[in-house]
Amino acid sequence: MSELVGNLLVAQSGGPTAVINASIAGVIQEAGRHECIEEIYGGLNGILGMLNEEIIDINEEKSRNIEGLKHTPAAALGTCRYKLDFKKKPERAAKDMDRLFEVFEAHNIRFFFYAGGNDSQDTAHKIHEQAVARGYEMRVIGVPKTIDNDLPHTDHCPGYGSVIKYNSATVMEVAADVLSMATDDGFCCLIEVMGRSAGWIAAGTALARRQPGDAPHLILLPEIPLDEEVFLAKVKEAVAQHKYCIVVVGEGVKNAAGEEIGADKSRVDAFGHPVLSGAAEYLSGLVQHRLNTKTRSIKLGYAQRAAAHYASLTDSQEAAATGEAAVRAAVSGQSGLMVKIVRTSTHPYKWTTGLQPLADIANVEHLLPRDWISEDGFMPNEKFIEYARPLIEGEVKVPTEGGLPKFVVLEKVRVEKKLPARA
Amino acid sequence: MSELVGNLLVAQSGGPTAVINASIAGVIQEAGRHECIEEIYGGLNGILGMLNEEIIDINEEKSRNIEGLKHTPAAALGTCRYKLDFKKKPERAAKDMDRLFEVFEAHNIRFFFYAGGNDSQDTAHKIHEQAVARGYEMRVIGVPKTIDNDLPHTDHCPGYGSVIKYNSATVMEVAADVLSMATDDGFCCLIEVMGRSAGWIAAGTALARRQPGDAPHLILLPEIPLDEEVFLAKVKEAVAQHKYCIVVVGEGVKNAAGEEIGADKSRVDAFGHPVLSGAAEYLSGLVQHRLNTKTRSIKLGYAQRAAAHYASLTDSQEAAATGEAAVRAAVSGQSGLMVKIVRTSTHPYKWTTGLQPLADIANVEHLLPRDWISEDGFMPNEKFIEYARPLIEGEVKVPTEGGLPKFVVLEKVRVEKKLPARA
Repeated sequence: MSELVGNLLVAQSGGPTAVINASIAGVIQEAGRHECIEEIYGGLNGILGMLNEEIIDINEEKSRNIEGLKHTPAAALGTCRYKLDFKKKPERAAKDMDRLFEVFEAHNIRFFFYAGGNDSQDTAHKIHEQAVARGYEMRVIGVPKTIDNDLPHTDHCPGYGSVIKYNSATVMEVAADVLSMATDDGFCCLIEVMGRSAGWIAAGTALARRQPGDAPHLILLPEIPLDEEVFLAKVKEAVAQHKYCIVVVGEGVKNAAGEEIGADKSRVDAFGHPVLSGAAEYLSGLVQHRLNTKTRSIKLGYAQRAAAHYASLTDSQEAAATGEAAVRAAVSGQSGLMVKIVRTSTHPYKWTTGLQPLADIANVEHLLPRDWISEDGFMPNEKFIEYARPLIEGEVKVPTEGGLPKFVVLEKVRVEKKLPARA
Repeated sequence: MSELVGNLLVAQSGGPTAVINASIAGVIQEAGRHECIEEIYGGLNGILGMLNEEIIDINEEKSRNIEGLKHTPAAALGTCRYKLDFKKKPERAAKDMDRLFEVFEAHNIRFFFYAGGNDSQDTAHKIHEQAVARGYEMRVIGVPKTIDNDLPHTDHCPGYGSVIKYNSATVMEVAADVLSMATDDGFCCLIEVMGRSAGWIAAGTALARRQPGDAPHLILLPEIPLDEEVFLAKVKEAVAQHKYCIVVVGEGVKNAAGEEIGADKSRVDAFGHPVLSGAAEYLSGLVQHRLNTKTRSIKLGYAQRAAAHYASLTDSQEAAATGEAAVRAAVSGQSGLMVKIVRTSTHPYKWTTGLQPLADIANVEHLLPRDWISEDGFMPNEKFIEYARPLIEGEVKVPTEGGLPKFVVLEKVRVEKKLPARA
């Protein structure tokens, strides 16, 4: 195999996480160690920006800022949800693919790294296949990222440890608050967390439980159909026993008919439009109304996936390592693969990186296994706890300025465009 | 003045904060330095527990745990919202007052400290007046606490600095996230924060703005009636300019008729009950519907006032100092006062504690001054920023165990009851 020499392009895609920038830093820092990589470019806003030749010169960035990406949340290069949709829009997708390869050729991109979740790995896979089909020599490696932890084959996904660390700390704090106010009348607080189809994020808050009786008392997982009567009975029991009840609600929790809770079309606003208030708020109304128990709800939304100020050091280090491993794989001649995290031991926790064909990743969703959930369906069991516990270890040190986090914003010096504007 | 010798009782009341326990630690640690204070007791759940003679012996607690209160959120002694309501329930209140003094006498309480907000200072004031009227020698000092920052006479309230620090960090993180996903279509994210009548908390998130164009782009204050059309125009403008718009919504924001936004009774749920979804969610629907701009909402709820993991060190130190100052005032013979924070300099920030008659505090609500708000009403101005900036400086160090905060739970060894049960 003759050594491939050329430029590197790295881009991000899908919903950001607290540590996806650490993966980008990993790619960049490792790339600097290999002579076959000439220029290091960043693609703005995923393939959407690449189609528009929106490319920045990473070597113009300060080294300090590259290192600072490891504590900076969101997607420093920008992201997108744009898909190459060969099924629904085959002509558009084919045109986009042609354009992408024009961009790759124009900038002599020979090493391409795409950090993202399921859809992004699918995009990387298609680009790899096209490179082979077109005889354009380019190494394509996917870098895993998703707070949802729903990618197959990897032990877990960078981004997941940080979101469950922050959410668990929040559960502990809110629980202390609610308990200190709980009188004999009882108090129920519902905390909605992300996860539309997979319950990994909701399940992760079980790490907040250190002693019997600790919050959360119930965790509602999208994988387990919710029976409202059973749920109400469980809340009543918890309030009777502990005077308070903390419920973590996975946003995608569904009823027996498979409909998302809180997406009830019969609720209308002043304009007559359906109110999609979210599961926690709907259930909060239900508890208040049926049990006459004081309730409050919290919806963490994007705050949870952006919470760099309490990110997991383990997660951040793993995210950086997947970026580094991606570059090493590409330089060694491999392509069409995603970096995965391989757990080699749980006690003590040890891990390494591995590689998995992108074809195995795309469009496969990894849900919480049923045998990691308690029989009644309201709590992950010890198997899950053993799995998740190491992922939240350590805290990322975030520098502050004036009492607030100091995040990195890249200079984003543009690489001169070489092509006519996109058609 | 002959020196008063006897026991101390400290209790907490109202909604907890991230640092109210630091005030309790301040009281306890300072009390240990004065020989005139014999036993140090804690009253559980404010006056509600005291009426039931629910008292704990603080000297049975480990010193390490008293110090640990300084990083532990919520109310370690428990709290209550119980009032001595002489207006609406004069008989009950008179009976409660008699009972309180039976408890004080039975346990030889000569130093009484009550940490709380407006209502709690009112309670402390009534107890002080009664002590004088009954000729029962007892020093009563109020310790200020409220995230709402709405107590008069004090420069600010312990608890406030921490909530705006956490909320501002959250705004920065969410803004980075939303910006990195913002495409030409634009994106609006609304973050609801606490504050039903005062906008101090919402205003505090203006500290997240370091550069022109930084989030939040709009802050909706309960003090300023919201005109929905003007609001929509402002959102549209921000999205056009920055591609995204972060709106911080004070939960108590009202329309021109003085009605809380989002408490629209015409919205009904499946049972036909009014939906009180909250201001951010209502406005989120409005933006989505009227501007066809993608929106998301976040409701931080109790998470913001319990967020010890990102508490302000300045706030925590001031909270402890108010507790210490309360004890010194009582020991020196003073009573019927609340400790206040006095700012002696802003550049550099310097402060000390002072004392204010409880009569001046009770039932006075301190709102955000109109001349600290921009002309258009959507942003606090430089006067506010100068005021608020020092309050979030420094981070409280929270020890961790297994990657999560290690908070203190008191042993709560009960003091033997000496009275028959409450009638």
